[in-house]
Amino acid sequence: MDVSKIKNPSFLKDFSHQELEQLSSDIRKFLIETCSVTGGHIGANLGVVELTLSLHKHFNSPVDKILWDVGHQTYIHKILTGRGHEFNSLRQYKGLCGFPKMKESEHDVWEAGHSSTSLSAAVGMAKARDILGQDHHVVPVIGDGALTGGMALEALNHIGHDKTNLTIILNDNEMSIAPNVGAMHNMFARIRSNQNYNRFKFDAESLINRLPGGDLLKDSADKIKDSLKYLVVDGIFFEELGIKYIGPVDGHNFKALDEAITVSKQMDKPVLIHVVTKKGKGYKPAEKDIIGTWHGLGPYKLETGEVIKGNAEGPAWSALMSDEVLAYAQQDKRIVAITPAMPVGSKLTKFQQTLPEQFFDVGIAEQHAVTMAAGLATQGMKPYVAIYSTFMQRAYDQLLHDVDRQNLNVLFGVDRAGLVGADGETHQGVFDVGFLSQFPNFTIMMPKDGNEAKNMIKTAFETDHGPMAIRYPRGNAPLLDDSKNSELLKIGSWNVERNGDDLTIISYGPTVSLVKDVADELLKEDIHINIINARFIKPMDYDMLHNLGKASKPILTVEEAMLTGGLGSQIATFMNDNDYHNTMRRIGINDTYIEHGDVGLLLEDIGISKSNIISTVKSLIK
Amino acid sequence: MDVSKIKNPSFLKDFSHQELEQLSSDIRKFLIETCSVTGGHIGANLGVVELTLSLHKHFNSPVDKILWDVGHQTYIHKILTGRGHEFNSLRQYKGLCGFPKMKESEHDVWEAGHSSTSLSAAVGMAKARDILGQDHHVVPVIGDGALTGGMALEALNHIGHDKTNLTIILNDNEMSIAPNVGAMHNMFARIRSNQNYNRFKFDAESLINRLPGGDLLKDSADKIKDSLKYLVVDGIFFEELGIKYIGPVDGHNFKALDEAITVSKQMDKPVLIHVVTKKGKGYKPAEKDIIGTWHGLGPYKLETGEVIKGNAEGPAWSALMSDEVLAYAQQDKRIVAITPAMPVGSKLTKFQQTLPEQFFDVGIAEQHAVTMAAGLATQGMKPYVAIYSTFMQRAYDQLLHDVDRQNLNVLFGVDRAGLVGADGETHQGVFDVGFLSQFPNFTIMMPKDGNEAKNMIKTAFETDHGPMAIRYPRGNAPLLDDSKNSELLKIGSWNVERNGDDLTIISYGPTVSLVKDVADELLKEDIHINIINARFIKPMDYDMLHNLGKASKPILTVEEAMLTGGLGSQIATFMNDNDYHNTMRRIGINDTYIEHGDVGLLLEDIGISKSNIISTVKSLIK
Repeated sequence: MDVSKIKNPSFLKDFSHQELEQLSSDIRKFLIETCSVTGGHIGANLGVVELTLSLHKHFNSPVDKILWDVGHQTYIHKILTGRGHEFNSLRQYKGLCGFPKMKESEHDVWEAGHSSTSLSAAVGMAKARDILGQDHHVVPVIGDGALTGGMALEALNHIGHDKTNLTIILNDNEMSIAPNVGAMHNMFARIRSNQNYNRFKFDAESLINRLPGGDLLKDSADKIKDSLKYLVVDGIFFEELGIKYIGPVDGHNFKALDEAITVSKQMDKPVLIHVVTKKGKGYKPAEKDIIGTWHGLGPYKLETGEVIKGNAEGPAWSALMSDEVLAYAQQDKRIVAITPAMPVGSKLTKFQQTLPEQFFDVGIAEQHAVTMAAGLATQGMKPYVAIYSTFMQRAYDQLLHDVDRQNLNVLFGVDRAGLVGADGETHQGVFDVGFLSQFPNFTIMMPKDGNEAKNMIKTAFETDHGPMAIRYPRGNAPLLDDSKNSELLKIGSWNVERNGDDLTIISYGPTVSLVKDVADELLKEDIHINIINARFIKPMDYDMLHNLGKASKPILTVEEAMLTGGLGSQIATFMNDNDYHNTMRRIGINDTYIEHGDVGLLLEDIGISKSNIISTVKSLIK
Repeated sequence: MDVSKIKNPSFLKDFSHQELEQLSSDIRKFLIETCSVTGGHIGANLGVVELTLSLHKHFNSPVDKILWDVGHQTYIHKILTGRGHEFNSLRQYKGLCGFPKMKESEHDVWEAGHSSTSLSAAVGMAKARDILGQDHHVVPVIGDGALTGGMALEALNHIGHDKTNLTIILNDNEMSIAPNVGAMHNMFARIRSNQNYNRFKFDAESLINRLPGGDLLKDSADKIKDSLKYLVVDGIFFEELGIKYIGPVDGHNFKALDEAITVSKQMDKPVLIHVVTKKGKGYKPAEKDIIGTWHGLGPYKLETGEVIKGNAEGPAWSALMSDEVLAYAQQDKRIVAITPAMPVGSKLTKFQQTLPEQFFDVGIAEQHAVTMAAGLATQGMKPYVAIYSTFMQRAYDQLLHDVDRQNLNVLFGVDRAGLVGADGETHQGVFDVGFLSQFPNFTIMMPKDGNEAKNMIKTAFETDHGPMAIRYPRGNAPLLDDSKNSELLKIGSWNVERNGDDLTIISYGPTVSLVKDVADELLKEDIHINIINARFIKPMDYDMLHNLGKASKPILTVEEAMLTGGLGSQIATFMNDNDYHNTMRRIGINDTYIEHGDVGLLLEDIGISKSNIISTVKSLIK
């Protein structure tokens, strides 16, 4: 079947298991080929081919609501709902989104890029259904990794209490992003290993019929009956929470999926179907992945699965950061590294192997990661939390109430700061500058290059200056000179990268390099730009700002972050507070969400581009 | 014993149960008396008298780390660690804090005012201990309500996996703030009701010895042995997570507490002791409370427990908001109310009783509350989430990723916005203006009085304008005229409260009334103030701002919120962006945490006071 021609999933109702198996094979072939060109979350999607087909066979989308937790595993769902023909634009600028998107299809009833949202959203949808007197099904699909996120557990607690009719699909692939950790993961492993499931159920039922009727048992008869459900049901954890458990079910077996879903539809209460799937199923390079490389990746060679490398120079920012922190940790056991399920993305696997006692992967649990770091810091430790900017949002109150308010020495490596590109609006790291700037004790830094990053790490570990964040982008760090020794930076000191009398541009991070290119261009027209690297976003360099204010020359700020709350807004406010009236402009993201696509194209749209900076400069000095 | 003379808890080691009981009685008498004058979280503290004495008897604080989740139940801990003599200043300006405070005592090893932080912090402390080669105990004390917060569940998942040596005290009082809800609560209730606990254990052991040896059982022998632990252990939920469960234990019985703590100390793994306590124990008015009135309250009459009312006029802000939303919900079943465990504080009990089908108390689960609202809104519902500003911080990413990014019609009643007074720095509602302003789709409002609040509710429910927040302070709403009909407000429109040519003051919320008083004073000196009520914090009234810019008169902004990211900073930035160079000053909270105390005194310190506003105005117009 040409899967790019599918218009909607209604044809699945009449498909036999054999036809479904053929379709699965066609879809896998299609996905492996298209993703080899576009990149994408191929591993997660190959694991849910049969599951997605079964859900669309048994449920009537979009009347029945299928919600995908995280949402990067919706490629099959997108194919079935008529978007196969757009897959050549997957994750590209103005192309098909890699996550559910309401404006793409009425079948996308919930958008998510962050983990663990589906159960809460599903409760809301189910309550709406009940209040409005409707009777459709609500079907959240959540991974075993996402289930350990705090919000999902809050939702389970509410669902079990409330008895709302929901069909929860637990997609247990033993690996969310990296291999899962946590007690729930161990519990699922125990369940999966229970080969005798069906026979054992029979044993237990026989047992209860043959119990001796002695005196001792009389009082406890009900209790024993209750307790025997523990003999026969694997999912006692969920049953204790008041949720009916069905499973484990082989997620690549249509017959097993048919049976489980059919049973679940007949129940008017919350049901969880435990579906066991294999990430990367059907593509050897992805199946063999045990650390999480194939979770999400760029283009690869179809035959071998070899990832096609870009031609960027220098080490990946995340590797540079993690390796440097490791070097300090080898000298000082008070330095420990924490990641919420991102050992691969944050390039911490070397740290993990080298210093396992000083390394903690806590799973998808951003709040716990941050407050655990706070607990460590109260005892004189120096924790380093590597966390993506966008996921750090999940720990806002932990950063504020636990770390900043107690002024604890925790260093945050804020990964994927700025635009991330293909993952799109749920993943852009553009809010942290604004929200961290509100916190009284936080120091916020962003290096323009690899050596500056090393200076910042040294400064953090050697000054004990309360909470600190070093932001760094996706991609590779330019201009790393390993022969240089790291230096302590004065907190709140900016650096003048180039002197010029006509106008000052203030920027931070890799954007400084763009600004230098602009200055080179302008120099040809005899326009002299003063370039300031605001390597400390907070605190700012007040001496330098006073000098700029007194000089009364125009100021332009350029930042890959939200303008509201950004560095430019802090500078404008400072100028106003101090009665300086320089002409100012700010370039950055103006109160909107930035969708997916090539970062260069997105920056062009925002105006973080040579041409826009040049024309803004000219308008300011004319 | 004169409990105000206790210097440290070491004397407890030698105390008999009888002496401990006498001391408990003395402490209760002391607390009931002092709190009748100062107010405070008396209910929670009366419930943990015996527990706190037992913990300080068996553990060696501060070497052993006792962490109090939430922290409002630490009055006995404060008495035992030498602070009894300061209780007449409890929760007062510059007085004893109502929560743990490191600078007060080395025994306060963790500060918390928000719920569910203790387990994560304890993991951090335990890891520090292990890495540094120390061997003390780490003892988090967490309530059954706090345990349903997502971060606590994330921590349980990590603890059970990791097997860190911790002694978790689950203080189960069946009521955290209001009566608890959720599946875990039901589970605890089942456990507590198991009167046959000890005998039943014996039954089960007899049973296993007398099982018939039929063929059917051979394969399953191990499994049955495993499953029998479910017969004999109540806390299967925790055991499934890899945490040793001990309990339930009577939390008012020293002997039972002795045994449980002694056993737990011998184990080198995570242990949870399930302690059942009674909130308000020993003071009849508090014991009889079933809805949560006695959770935290102001001064009361000692004999009767009658709360001493202030002389504020008008209805409580929270009652005004909740009752008005109820009136709309009675006309429109799409309007539902959600609270994360605050039905009493948010005055939603009337809504709950009147429209139970449209009301959801989800327990301490702010993230779930917000994303559930998002789920409801996707289905055309109009959810109203009543949430304290400070606790809304817990749902930052849910507000951003789930509600704002999907531009859903959710209305937030942001309660306790601004300074809250006695609860202090963990509870001040001063960050929301800044962080919500960063979100592209949010509309943020704050009414100056009751009628304006009603206009805002009408505007929210009748315009479907995406996410909206109505902020309102603690205390009572002034100037409510019930004869007035509510009016739709134009989104982003400000109101000129008074015309004047010398200077413009822009403010919002009840502070507008203070500004009017200031203007009256200044009028006597022939200074004419233009007063603008910025009832929409976002979007701002750009037409009015352009007019102000063109008029070039000085501008002063006054707000009870963080200056960084506040309305004043947005206005300053707007002026800069548009080349207006009015002289400007901003009054608000300047990059610091505000401690507990009388709101009037705190505002004086911050400079939100007649005298400071008057002197600032004069400095600007001279």
